[in-house]
Amino acid sequence: MSKQLEGPILPFLRIDATIALPKFRQVQDQLRMAILKGHLRAGTRLPASRILADELGLSRQTLVRVLENLKAEGYLEARQGAGTFVSAALPRQSTKLSMPARGDVTDSAPPRLSRIGEQSRRMSADIGQMEDRPFLPNRPALDRFPFAIWRKCWNAVARSGKAVAMGYGDVAGELVLRQRIAEYLALHRRDPCDPEQIVITPGGHAAFSLAALALADAGDGIWFEDPGPITTSNLFRTLGLRLCPTHVDAEGLDVEGAIARYPDARLAFVMPSRHHPLGVTLTLPRRLALLEWARANDAWIIEDDYDSEFRYDGAPLPSMRSIDSNGRVIYAGSFSKALYPGLRVGYLVLPPPLIGTFRNLSALIHRSVPVETQLALAEFIGGGHFASHLRRMRSLYAERRETFTQVAQETLAGLARIDSSESGLNALAWLKGGRQDQAPHRAVLDAGLQCYPLSDYTIATPLPGALILGYAGVPADRMRPLLLRLADAIARTEGNIGR
Amino acid sequence: MSKQLEGPILPFLRIDATIALPKFRQVQDQLRMAILKGHLRAGTRLPASRILADELGLSRQTLVRVLENLKAEGYLEARQGAGTFVSAALPRQSTKLSMPARGDVTDSAPPRLSRIGEQSRRMSADIGQMEDRPFLPNRPALDRFPFAIWRKCWNAVARSGKAVAMGYGDVAGELVLRQRIAEYLALHRRDPCDPEQIVITPGGHAAFSLAALALADAGDGIWFEDPGPITTSNLFRTLGLRLCPTHVDAEGLDVEGAIARYPDARLAFVMPSRHHPLGVTLTLPRRLALLEWARANDAWIIEDDYDSEFRYDGAPLPSMRSIDSNGRVIYAGSFSKALYPGLRVGYLVLPPPLIGTFRNLSALIHRSVPVETQLALAEFIGGGHFASHLRRMRSLYAERRETFTQVAQETLAGLARIDSSESGLNALAWLKGGRQDQAPHRAVLDAGLQCYPLSDYTIATPLPGALILGYAGVPADRMRPLLLRLADAIARTEGNIGR
Repeated sequence: MSKQLEGPILPFLRIDATIALPKFRQVQDQLRMAILKGHLRAGTRLPASRILADELGLSRQTLVRVLENLKAEGYLEARQGAGTFVSAALPRQSTKLSMPARGDVTDSAPPRLSRIGEQSRRMSADIGQMEDRPFLPNRPALDRFPFAIWRKCWNAVARSGKAVAMGYGDVAGELVLRQRIAEYLALHRRDPCDPEQIVITPGGHAAFSLAALALADAGDGIWFEDPGPITTSNLFRTLGLRLCPTHVDAEGLDVEGAIARYPDARLAFVMPSRHHPLGVTLTLPRRLALLEWARANDAWIIEDDYDSEFRYDGAPLPSMRSIDSNGRVIYAGSFSKALYPGLRVGYLVLPPPLIGTFRNLSALIHRSVPVETQLALAEFIGGGHFASHLRRMRSLYAERRETFTQVAQETLAGLARIDSSESGLNALAWLKGGRQDQAPHRAVLDAGLQCYPLSDYTIATPLPGALILGYAGVPADRMRPLLLRLADAIARTEGNIGR
Repeated sequence: MSKQLEGPILPFLRIDATIALPKFRQVQDQLRMAILKGHLRAGTRLPASRILADELGLSRQTLVRVLENLKAEGYLEARQGAGTFVSAALPRQSTKLSMPARGDVTDSAPPRLSRIGEQSRRMSADIGQMEDRPFLPNRPALDRFPFAIWRKCWNAVARSGKAVAMGYGDVAGELVLRQRIAEYLALHRRDPCDPEQIVITPGGHAAFSLAALALADAGDGIWFEDPGPITTSNLFRTLGLRLCPTHVDAEGLDVEGAIARYPDARLAFVMPSRHHPLGVTLTLPRRLALLEWARANDAWIIEDDYDSEFRYDGAPLPSMRSIDSNGRVIYAGSFSKALYPGLRVGYLVLPPPLIGTFRNLSALIHRSVPVETQLALAEFIGGGHFASHLRRMRSLYAERRETFTQVAQETLAGLARIDSSESGLNALAWLKGGRQDQAPHRAVLDAGLQCYPLSDYTIATPLPGALILGYAGVPADRMRPLLLRLADAIARTEGNIGR
């Protein structure tokens, strides 16, 4: 039945004295691998431990330890009075493990994926990766963040009730943070809600995923503003939704047109406060028409209120949620722009009938964010630091926008027309002479700066070439040299018009 | 065309001097609501501002401010020489907003949801909510966490390179954390991998969601150990997978049986190091048979290695991933048990052909965890604190397990048989006399303690009644009084046998 090992065991084992791994670990790992690869087959008897120890240059004690470990793992077995064997129970198939197979990592055929996986695989490799260089869109002024106060809030959490911060926490997010957010929304967004309506998510995108998964099946239509943020449209597309690109004009999303073309959509994703990247605000008549469409068609509206905090002329417009009497609006907020992107905290405000569903789904698919982060953020908002930070940032960004617009109009004269709306962190530079934006975009990256080409945001309706530039993260005194560098980069692609 | 407002405007407006909201905000909010509710219809002319101000007891200046704001928001419009009107552009439908509608929040019909949403809605309302009371399963010893060192790691991150911690970060998680995890796995789990193969997720469940979404479509089969963790089976069920309950015996998952019953499954979710809640380890022959099935059927294995760190006899068994030559294993780890649940950091180690797909999907659906948390954790692991914390916890938990087993065998004698495996944070108390576990479970909760009934974990195969008890979080000197209270609670339900 059992085979005696033919020839020395040594060919399978190579002890390397130059590496840090102890000898016994090397022998153990290599013996295991020799068994897994079928070099040592099931049922094979090993040489007597004294001989094996000699052959391997190990003490007998060390070798015995190796053999005991491999017995405990199930690779070897002792048979009374007969010595040590490769376990007879190991399946023959184990010999195949060393052979290339369909699923082998050296195989170049794409792996077998779900529809969602396949969509993800086909996407550009750098999706969502953003290099933090000047003019990166949606980048707040990190250098002006009140870091000392922020640390104090963390320390306050660390001092009080460690166990709370370390436990499993509430699946929808800590109640104290939801209370602070509800208070903030009531005071500053004129939109009171019950903290129970809030679900905290690991960032804004997790909030959109949650809503899309809970409210729409694969194949269901979703209105999506064209142009619109590429990672968000990719999210919905990847989840299998049917993207319904809707036209955007000076009054925002063309609701009438969308109703005419996609009356049966299940969802509408909108940025009513400030469309990204065009900067327009959805007018009141259109808001009401959108709400009425949702009511009449049992559809849902995801309101992305991602940077309503930064409006430089007058107060921000009330949210759509605040004028929705029929519970059709799912309001999505995030702290990525108001505080900093690395914080990764987002939230949803839900119509009451959706609370249970979203709590449960959130508990299953991601279960909120680090509890300490939530408590520190609650402390920061509760202490009034959030409101005063926003106040300071509003005036800082208004200043930077002013400087940017002035200097850019000068430095980019002849190259682009500057369009900086009265809100947000970004401006558009519309390229002159009908130029496309891809070559200038690459030139800007090559110059060590950042921007997004508007064409990356368009879905069905081509637009003139434009670059999306973030000014909020650029100090006023750096604006001129950086804009000169930008102008130089764009100018150098002048020869490529039409390419 | 335009209607003059009949009667005083006052009926719609009630200024309340006792609330904190300034008068002008009250008037503004109420005027807006009156328009939205259709009390003031599109085209209606407002009284002259002087009259209105008098009527409302506001200064004319304040009233003008209110009217200007509502004009800016689109509710009112000025007509040259004719006064202020409710905007004619507002759709007639706005009057419907005050009427109950299909989607109204007072409507008791369930809201229109996706299949995933509908599954979530039907789930028990307290899914994933865990009260931190003695014997809560999977609860580590939070009181022994090296909080001072942990704070130092955070402060080190705070001091160095704030901008890095605040920026968008890498969509798959910070490289430095992925490097530290790879080093940890190589040294302590004998399982080297490239940091590029790692994707950081917001907790362990987010890791499972990511894998399930990328690898299986709705309707695809997934092997799932029966009994098994209810939130995990609920996750897969909710995502639309076909749950294939597989038998577990003393050698772990019954691979042969699963192959016979569900050969075409797309996924296998397994806990080979330590099955939860039974505590068994998957034997080597079965591991190899499982790997071979996955290879031959182009299926994927999700290896949940959630608490392999805590094994009290000998070194932990090597992971399945480490003996997988065909790239079929997706390894899932989490810091919830090794550090603390509130941390919410999990990760996956991927076969190379899946890296791009998982990076992209992660970027879209949740985009990693707070960057600061990741950097602090990297610092903690890199400083050797993680390994030494685990070492200390291993001996602490071994001690607590010893005490628990000893005392429980005594206090629960006649009520339950104690079964504490050589690993993990929990033990099983098998109820004597064929008793069911639901009534004793409720009694334990009523006594201010925690535990899970085994019957909550069973899917298709009923098991004898048992309670899952977490001992790792209970100090040795509290064990006896708490176990006495537990015994008392269980004993009090003796009369309910069979119910």
